[in-house]
Amino acid sequence: MVKLAIERESDVPLYRQLANQLRTLIRTGSLPPGARLPPVREVAAELGLTRLTVHSAYAELQAQGLTEAVVGRGTFVAADARTGSTGMVVGAVPPPTPWLSQSLLAELTPEVEAGDLLTLSSAHPAAETFPVRELGRAIQETVADPLSLGYGPVAGEMALREQIATLLLERGIVTPPEHVLITAGAQQGIDLAIRSLTMPGDVVVVEEPTYPGVLEVAAQRRQPIVGVPFDEDGLSIDALAAICQSYHPRMVYTVSTFHNPTGLTLASGRRRDLLRLADEHDFLLVEDDTYGFLGLHGDASTPLKAHDEEHRVIYITSFSKMVSPSLRLGAIVASPRYLPRLAAAKQGSDLVCSSLLQRTLATYLRQGALPSHLERVRAIYRQREEALDTSLRRFAPACTWTRPAGGLNLWVTLPDGVEEADVYREALAQGVTVARGQMFYPEPQRVGHLRLSFGNLTPGQIVDAVAILGHVIQRQQGRRMWQRGQTARPLG
Amino acid sequence: MVKLAIERESDVPLYRQLANQLRTLIRTGSLPPGARLPPVREVAAELGLTRLTVHSAYAELQAQGLTEAVVGRGTFVAADARTGSTGMVVGAVPPPTPWLSQSLLAELTPEVEAGDLLTLSSAHPAAETFPVRELGRAIQETVADPLSLGYGPVAGEMALREQIATLLLERGIVTPPEHVLITAGAQQGIDLAIRSLTMPGDVVVVEEPTYPGVLEVAAQRRQPIVGVPFDEDGLSIDALAAICQSYHPRMVYTVSTFHNPTGLTLASGRRRDLLRLADEHDFLLVEDDTYGFLGLHGDASTPLKAHDEEHRVIYITSFSKMVSPSLRLGAIVASPRYLPRLAAAKQGSDLVCSSLLQRTLATYLRQGALPSHLERVRAIYRQREEALDTSLRRFAPACTWTRPAGGLNLWVTLPDGVEEADVYREALAQGVTVARGQMFYPEPQRVGHLRLSFGNLTPGQIVDAVAILGHVIQRQQGRRMWQRGQTARPLG
Repeated sequence: MVKLAIERESDVPLYRQLANQLRTLIRTGSLPPGARLPPVREVAAELGLTRLTVHSAYAELQAQGLTEAVVGRGTFVAADARTGSTGMVVGAVPPPTPWLSQSLLAELTPEVEAGDLLTLSSAHPAAETFPVRELGRAIQETVADPLSLGYGPVAGEMALREQIATLLLERGIVTPPEHVLITAGAQQGIDLAIRSLTMPGDVVVVEEPTYPGVLEVAAQRRQPIVGVPFDEDGLSIDALAAICQSYHPRMVYTVSTFHNPTGLTLASGRRRDLLRLADEHDFLLVEDDTYGFLGLHGDASTPLKAHDEEHRVIYITSFSKMVSPSLRLGAIVASPRYLPRLAAAKQGSDLVCSSLLQRTLATYLRQGALPSHLERVRAIYRQREEALDTSLRRFAPACTWTRPAGGLNLWVTLPDGVEEADVYREALAQGVTVARGQMFYPEPQRVGHLRLSFGNLTPGQIVDAVAILGHVIQRQQGRRMWQRGQTARPLG
Repeated sequence: MVKLAIERESDVPLYRQLANQLRTLIRTGSLPPGARLPPVREVAAELGLTRLTVHSAYAELQAQGLTEAVVGRGTFVAADARTGSTGMVVGAVPPPTPWLSQSLLAELTPEVEAGDLLTLSSAHPAAETFPVRELGRAIQETVADPLSLGYGPVAGEMALREQIATLLLERGIVTPPEHVLITAGAQQGIDLAIRSLTMPGDVVVVEEPTYPGVLEVAAQRRQPIVGVPFDEDGLSIDALAAICQSYHPRMVYTVSTFHNPTGLTLASGRRRDLLRLADEHDFLLVEDDTYGFLGLHGDASTPLKAHDEEHRVIYITSFSKMVSPSLRLGAIVASPRYLPRLAAAKQGSDLVCSSLLQRTLATYLRQGALPSHLERVRAIYRQREEALDTSLRRFAPACTWTRPAGGLNLWVTLPDGVEEADVYREALAQGVTVARGQMFYPEPQRVGHLRLSFGNLTPGQIVDAVAILGHVIQRQQGRRMWQRGQTARPLG
C-alpha cells in the first residue's frame, strides 16, 4: 500500500490533504494508470479518518478525471491521468486566480491616472490615437434619436453587424451580418464562449503563455485548463495532438495573430494543422483576433476563421485597441449552430450592448474613417516598438525578447536566476511598471518573464522606462552572483 | 422493489429515462426519504441495462441532491428530498430555459421597431422620458476628454460611484462610494452575484413569480432553484423558513419593491423577518431595486439594504428604467467581504463599463437634473397605469389583476380554464403583445397569468390594446364553455 500521512494541526481540510497526496502519487507515476486505489475502509482505518473523509478525497480525484470508479470493483487511476513530466497540467482545476489583484487594470489604474508611473505593463492603446473628433460628431448625431437610448436586439444593432461583416472581408472572413454577435469587447466574447459552449469539467486548452482573461474565466468556472507549449511559430501542434489523445479538450483558445503576451504569430502550416486537429478530435477553436488589424509591417496572417469549413471556429474581434476601449464593443462570428447559445449567454450576462455606442460606431465605420485611422495608429506603434527594441539592446542586453510583427506587446526572458517578482517590485519602486510573466500561465513557472507593452508610452518615455528597468535587472543579476559567491565561500 | 420500465426506441438516453422515473418516485413519495435504492447490479439485471447506465442514473440523482450514497451500504433517498406537494421545486436543476426565444427583447424587438404592434409585453421605459438634450450635452462634454475613451477602473469611475452613493441616501442607504460597484445594468448585477457568490449546487431561492433574468442565469449555471410562494404582501416568510430547513439556500433573490412581474411590495414586517431569517439560516439576500425610484404614489418602501446590519444584502440598482437602458449602467452595493469577488467576476465578464457613459451619467447626476426628471417620469407612468386599470375593468372584467404602487408592470390572473398561451397567440395575431405568465416561473404552472407593462404605450394606445386583449380573452372563455358543453353532451 502507498504511504500516506495526515497532519491534524494543518489548516488544510483532511480530505483535501489526502486528495493532494494521492494526486501527487498519480502525477509522479507512483500510482500508475490502471492501479487500484486502496479501499476506502482500509485507508480510513489506517489513517484514523472517517470513511466520509476518504470518500470525499476519492470523489475529488474522480471529479478531476484522475480516477475512475468501477461499480463493485473499486477506484482506479484513469488511463489518461498522465504525469506532470510533459509540462502539462493534469485536469487541474486552478483555484480562483488573483487576477484582480495582479491585474494591471485593477492594480495600476489609480497610479496611471495620477500620471506618476511609466507603464510598460498595460496593453492599452495610446490615448493620442483615439479619434475624439470623429467619435464626438458621430455620437452627437446618434444621441439625438431617442431610439438610440432604448434597449436594442440581443445580438446587436444590425447597422453595426453589417459594418463589421464588411470590415472582416479585409481579414479574409466572409460572413453574413446575421452570424455576427455584438459583445462588450473581446473579454465578453471569451466569457460567452466558455460559458455557453463548455460544460463543467470540459477541458479548455490554452497557449503557454496566454492572455490572463481566459485563465480568469476558466478558473471562476472551475474549468480544467491544460496548457500547450508555444514557440516562435506559435502553439506546438505535436504537443496539442498528444493533449487531445489524453484530455479530449472541448475547446482550444488561441491568440493566433500578434499573440498576447508574446507578439508572435501562428505559422500558416500550423494553422492548417490546427484546423485538421479540431476536426479529428472534435474540439472548438476560440480564435481571439483582438490585434489582427494592428500589423506593424504589412498585412497580418489570415485568421483560422477564413478557412473554417467545418464551422469549428468561434472568432472574436474587438474595437478596444483599434478605436477606443470605452466603446466596450467587439464581436463574435460563429456558425448558426452556436449562435443561439452564445446569444442566450449574452442576454443572461447583461442583456444587450449600448445601442447608443453601437450606432455611434456604425456611423463612424460607415463614414470610412477607419482605414486612414489605422494607418496613423500603426505608424505610431511601429515607432514605439522600435524604441522599445533599441532600448532593450542598449539597457538590458542580458535579456532575450521577441520582435512582434504587430499588436502592442513584447515578451522578455530574464537572465538565468533573476526573479521576475523582484524585478517587478524594484521597477515599481522606481516608477516603472511591467507585467510579471507568471500571470500569463495557468501554473507556477520557473523561468522569469516580463511582458512589456509599448502602446501607451511615447518613444522618449519608453527609453526612460527601459533605462530604469535595465538598471534594475543588472542590479538583480549582480545580487544573484554575489549571493552565489557568498554561498560558495565558507563563512569565516 | 419499485416498478421501472425502459423504452429502448425512445430518443431519451436510457440512463436519463431511469433517472426520470426514479425522480418521480421520490417526488411522489413512493420512494420516501431514507429509502434504499435497489443495488445497481439488481436494477441492471432486471432491466437488461449495463451497470454503467444504472450508475449514471444514480449519479444524476445524487448530483441533484435527491439521493445520498453511503459507502459500503448503498444509495438512499435524501432526508430533504421533499415531494412537489408543497409547490416547491425539489433541488431541481432546470434545463437551459428558452428565455432567449420567449424573451420579449429577443422576440419582439424587430416587430417593435417596425412599429406595428401594441406592446403590453415589454417592461421598457417610455422613449418620451429619455432626457435626450441633457444626456446629449453631458456626453458632448465628456467625449472631448481622451481619458474618457480609455479603460477605467474595474469597480467603476469614482465620480459615478460618488453620485450613486449620494443618490441612494434618498432610498435610506448610507454607503461609502468605495462599496459601490458599477455594473452593466441590473442583469449584470444578478449575474455577478450568482456567479461569484454561489458554488455549483448551491440552492438559489426566487419568488414565484420572479424576473426571468434570474432564472436564466441560474439555469445556465445549472444552479438548483427553489421557488417561494408570493402573495399581496410579498414572499411568504413561513414558506421561506420551511425552505431554509429543507434546502439550506445560499442565496435568496427578491425584487422587494414594485416587484417584477406583479408590481407588489414586500410588507415592512416581512422585511424585518426576512433579514432575521437570513441571519438564522446564513444566506445572502440579493435585493433587486430596479424600480425603487419609480413610485407612482408617494415614496417607496425602504430597501432591505438600509437595515442590513449583518452585511448580508447584495443591493442592485439600475438606471435603465429611470434614465435610459442604452447607458447600460447600474450598480451593486455590497460589503467589502463580497466586493473583491464581485469585482473579479466583473473583470472576467467584460473588464469594465464604458468610461464615456459612466462619466456622462456622473455629469448628468451632478447637475441635479434627476429629481425633476423623475417627477415628470412618475407622472407619465401614473397616467398610464390608471389607463391600464380602467381599460381592464371595462374590457376584461372576468380577470383579476394587481394595482402596483410603482414600477412598470401589473399582473393579470386569467379566468379559470383560459390558457395563457392561447391568449398570447391570438392577441399577437391581432397586433397586441403580452408577456406569458409562464416565463416568470421556474416550473410549469397550471393557472394562467399575463404580465402587462404600461411603460411604453400612451394612454390611448393602452385603451386600444386592452380592448383587443379583452375581446381575445372573452372569445377564449366562450370557446372553453362551448367545449365543456360539447364534452358534457353525449355525441349523437
